[in-house]
Amino acid sequence: MRSEFDLINHIKANYTLNVIGDDCAILPKDTQSDQLFTVDLLIENIDFRLEWTTPEFLGHKALAVSLSDIAAMGGSPKYALLSLGVPDNLWKTSFLDRFYEGWHRLATEFEVELVGGDISRSPSGLTIDSFVVGEAARGQAIRRSSAQAGDKMFVTGPLGGAALGLSLLEKGERFKQLDGCPGQAAILRQLKPRPQVAFGKLLLNNALASSAIDISDGLSSDLAHICEASGVGAHLDAAAIPIAEGASLEMALHGGEDFELLFTVPADRAAEAEASGAIEIGHITGDAGKVTISGAAGIEELKPMGFQHF
Amino acid sequence: MRSEFDLINHIKANYTLNVIGDDCAILPKDTQSDQLFTVDLLIENIDFRLEWTTPEFLGHKALAVSLSDIAAMGGSPKYALLSLGVPDNLWKTSFLDRFYEGWHRLATEFEVELVGGDISRSPSGLTIDSFVVGEAARGQAIRRSSAQAGDKMFVTGPLGGAALGLSLLEKGERFKQLDGCPGQAAILRQLKPRPQVAFGKLLLNNALASSAIDISDGLSSDLAHICEASGVGAHLDAAAIPIAEGASLEMALHGGEDFELLFTVPADRAAEAEASGAIEIGHITGDAGKVTISGAAGIEELKPMGFQHF
Repeated sequence: MRSEFDLINHIKANYTLNVIGDDCAILPKDTQSDQLFTVDLLIENIDFRLEWTTPEFLGHKALAVSLSDIAAMGGSPKYALLSLGVPDNLWKTSFLDRFYEGWHRLATEFEVELVGGDISRSPSGLTIDSFVVGEAARGQAIRRSSAQAGDKMFVTGPLGGAALGLSLLEKGERFKQLDGCPGQAAILRQLKPRPQVAFGKLLLNNALASSAIDISDGLSSDLAHICEASGVGAHLDAAAIPIAEGASLEMALHGGEDFELLFTVPADRAAEAEASGAIEIGHITGDAGKVTISGAAGIEELKPMGFQHF
Repeated sequence: MRSEFDLINHIKANYTLNVIGDDCAILPKDTQSDQLFTVDLLIENIDFRLEWTTPEFLGHKALAVSLSDIAAMGGSPKYALLSLGVPDNLWKTSFLDRFYEGWHRLATEFEVELVGGDISRSPSGLTIDSFVVGEAARGQAIRRSSAQAGDKMFVTGPLGGAALGLSLLEKGERFKQLDGCPGQAAILRQLKPRPQVAFGKLLLNNALASSAIDISDGLSSDLAHICEASGVGAHLDAAAIPIAEGASLEMALHGGEDFELLFTVPADRAAEAEASGAIEIGHITGDAGKVTISGAAGIEELKPMGFQHF
């Protein structure tokens, strides 16, 4: 079966498309600004399960994943369009009202305006497609492709929480309330992720990051994307990787959907990145395409191995 | 069951959203231009049937419906993003290649650039979401809301062909080739509609239309949208409505998906509209919300009655 990446590469090869490859497409808006376009498709029982979440959380997450793409490039989200394919049984309930409640609350927080959308009946499951348009200062959007050997590598927060939450949901646990236990916090991280929009803007405004990506597929996979796009390698210090409470190093390395940012900065600016609250986890090397990790067992090669969402 | 219009109105009422209501959202781009955003969701067995069409036709139609929204406002399409939820059985075939072939051919014709998208597995049917960004001269996009009593009303071509095509597909006919018979032409109109982008641009460039909409829901429904948005009524001359070969007046009045444009012009510019090749079919009245039609049986009220696509 071909993967999403195969398909995008196939389209690029066949149709001389060269703007795909970052979290968002970057297109000129006016003399001051570029526009960022991103779209995220969420399909029931592939990307989410209704019995694991609430309509409000799902509305939140549908927007959050797109805001995270804007955040990864340092942009400011502006407008959204939302398409929904809705099965008959959900029309008759308060589902749509509650879904929009969650969507709208996050949109209000980030000053995103819903300007359009489409809705259709669906003969089977719920389908959600979220488009977000953002802006960034002209030529300043942070790319994946400009990491350089010697750059230091940072993440904005602990990893593995969303993967732990997923594993708990699979075992039958559900979100009730934040009770101080890591399990409930992890499930909430999985169901209601925080997009790092403010941090992305800080990186752009200070021209601090040489590259960035949001951790949606998992650290090992998303780091591989940066290495491939930049033609570099990377070395991770396992002991430095911040791990969400209750999660394992494995979850932190390969679990997706934490939606923290992974970014690189020139070595002489590492102190600034640290002062911003980010955590240094390694550095970029000149060994193109190779990612290594140093841990208890010495230095090993790390292959990208994103968790399947199910 | 609530309809798409109910939901949009509900969202507008609850979230003080006021840019929805035209074929596209209109947002400022720079000092010269506005941007037009539109999205169209197509769901298998609701909006199309794979056994009735070809992958190439479906790729064409997925883009054509969005280009038609841009055309209705006089805009020039620029960029597209495409989301696909693809069932396992289609991954293994040439379906995606052929779908993109049809999509890309139409995109090339209208100089639309694919800048992004998303793809996911789908546990059941195929889902397609098409997002198109267009441009129009600042403040010049043609709205639904500015028709005035006394304006003359025009369509760009014959109506009812797509509805005839749909009825033939339902009876088991399939497209083979254009053979001079109206049935095959009608099926092609249903499966591979032509967006009236050039005509829309002509209307905008000459500041000719006081309002416009594309006929996607059906003449009676789309005229009702103009009347509601503009606070006017309308009168149709049944004998003047151009009917596709083989179709009925009923199909021309209520059949959707012809994707011709319906537009109004001030009475003193009707000759220009006619010279452009459009067909005059009635006029706008001051009787808000009321649409009448004169035919063999005298003058009757015409209620919006769009065909269900299935």
